[in-house]
Amino acid sequence: MKFDAFPTGFKIAVIGSGAIGCYYGGRLAQHGRNVHFLMRRDLEAVRKDGLQVRSPDGDFHLPQVNAAGSTPEIGPSDLVLIALKTTSNTDLEKLVPPLLGENTALLTLQNGFGNEDFLAERFGAERVMGGLCFVCLNRVARGVIEHYGHGSLSIGEFNRPPQPRTRQVVEEFAACGIVTRLAENLVTERWRKLVWNVPFNGLSIAAGKITTDAILADADLCALARSLMAEVIEAAGREGHAIPRDFIEVQIARTRTMGAYKPSSLIDYAEGREVEVESIWGEPYRRGLKAGADVPRLEMLYFLLKKLSVRN
Amino acid sequence: MKFDAFPTGFKIAVIGSGAIGCYYGGRLAQHGRNVHFLMRRDLEAVRKDGLQVRSPDGDFHLPQVNAAGSTPEIGPSDLVLIALKTTSNTDLEKLVPPLLGENTALLTLQNGFGNEDFLAERFGAERVMGGLCFVCLNRVARGVIEHYGHGSLSIGEFNRPPQPRTRQVVEEFAACGIVTRLAENLVTERWRKLVWNVPFNGLSIAAGKITTDAILADADLCALARSLMAEVIEAAGREGHAIPRDFIEVQIARTRTMGAYKPSSLIDYAEGREVEVESIWGEPYRRGLKAGADVPRLEMLYFLLKKLSVRN
Repeated sequence: MKFDAFPTGFKIAVIGSGAIGCYYGGRLAQHGRNVHFLMRRDLEAVRKDGLQVRSPDGDFHLPQVNAAGSTPEIGPSDLVLIALKTTSNTDLEKLVPPLLGENTALLTLQNGFGNEDFLAERFGAERVMGGLCFVCLNRVARGVIEHYGHGSLSIGEFNRPPQPRTRQVVEEFAACGIVTRLAENLVTERWRKLVWNVPFNGLSIAAGKITTDAILADADLCALARSLMAEVIEAAGREGHAIPRDFIEVQIARTRTMGAYKPSSLIDYAEGREVEVESIWGEPYRRGLKAGADVPRLEMLYFLLKKLSVRN
Repeated sequence: MKFDAFPTGFKIAVIGSGAIGCYYGGRLAQHGRNVHFLMRRDLEAVRKDGLQVRSPDGDFHLPQVNAAGSTPEIGPSDLVLIALKTTSNTDLEKLVPPLLGENTALLTLQNGFGNEDFLAERFGAERVMGGLCFVCLNRVARGVIEHYGHGSLSIGEFNRPPQPRTRQVVEEFAACGIVTRLAENLVTERWRKLVWNVPFNGLSIAAGKITTDAILADADLCALARSLMAEVIEAAGREGHAIPRDFIEVQIARTRTMGAYKPSSLIDYAEGREVEVESIWGEPYRRGLKAGADVPRLEMLYFLLKKLSVRN
């Protein structure tokens, strides 16, 4: 059965070995799971020196990990963690097929909207699961990940309630020291995460490469962040995903604990990489518009970021 | 009488000898008017080499102009043209008094809202006139102004209909080769000009230092420019200044003729100078808000530009 639990010792492939892929894959490998990393730019370094994670929860070093230079080297797997930048999604069309067996599940840990749909269209909706990462990470050198804090996951199924395999994946991650929740409705969870990502990732770029504390410290930008959150909540609500309005103040309070945090999109932008504009702003904007929400600030932020990202 | 015409050969002082001050003051001097320039950074160059204007309407060179290093050197004048950056308005508190006689009029050629009010509060409302410049200019070297095109003026009185002196000033400018209109209502004219300045000056900065043709070429940014224009028109309308909606398409069409134009605010920003954020975005935003207009995009643009300008 497609949604049944995976067999004991099931094989996990990780595609996209940036900070997210290395951190979560590394946690699983640290606890003895059968993990295979697709590495590109870091392949030689990781084969030589292994994978290193520096973390407030305790540093760890995996001197030897299964690092492959292509997905045919990995071969059919039971679970594929997808942690590529969403701007490289078309690469998945070639990367994924060699990993597919009859019951292979694809778990996207990518940002925003559109990724589950992308996988479902190409590889079959029944394979697709999604996860949300609440974590502050950066890849600081080849094979070296800096974990600044947080780290929880929320995992669910694409357009269906949790299945036996979903509960198993949640339990496996939890057994490897990762706080992991079961997402009853993945789309609701994605909307909730975007309530934060839309304003903070966006304004950190559009207001001139500033950290989250600088947004909070500027009364006008903080008001603008609240207005953007309200628009995302309205869009979600129109789509049937109710998020209470007081969630806004919860997010503001949570952001205050983060200090001078650089959202991942700001790091991408500042380092001259393409920003995940469509998954974080474009898709929510289009969904909101389609559902009849009034989203003028989200629209404006999306239009500005699209242009800024291209010019980057 | 305060609003009567000025005497024959009346004395004109120009404060703020950047592109605007030198161009319009230069046109008046070219046609024999009694013009005195307050020069600061360009004083020595202009005393030595005079003032040069390169223009599609014909270049001209004024080998000798009255250039003073301070306003006491100029002394009481009949008409003071004020062309300082609005970000330096507080300088006027010291610069203007030495120029004042009993009937001295102050004509601000500065951008946006707030300048007439600033002068009225400090020097008396009856002195204040305002002018709008529709011109593409840049100061390219000390004492050298490049005129790219356009050049008309619209001149009116502060909170009163045109007076004898207003008609006289309009005629004088016109006699010096400048297309000049009488503004029946200066506030309406300022709103009309902001319909262009708000989106094009603003987006040229916020979308990553781009020229007006790049805004028009991006369907989303062009739509955003239209939405911003609609908000400015709504704000103006709520304040009792009716601007027809089809004015938006007139502005788009006019902008198409301008090519790869750099709005003055973009030049300021790109060259690391302070941007006139309050007069172009802040004041219209506050007026719109006070009048009950729905101006989310204007608000967002103002908040972003304020932060971008500070960080510049």
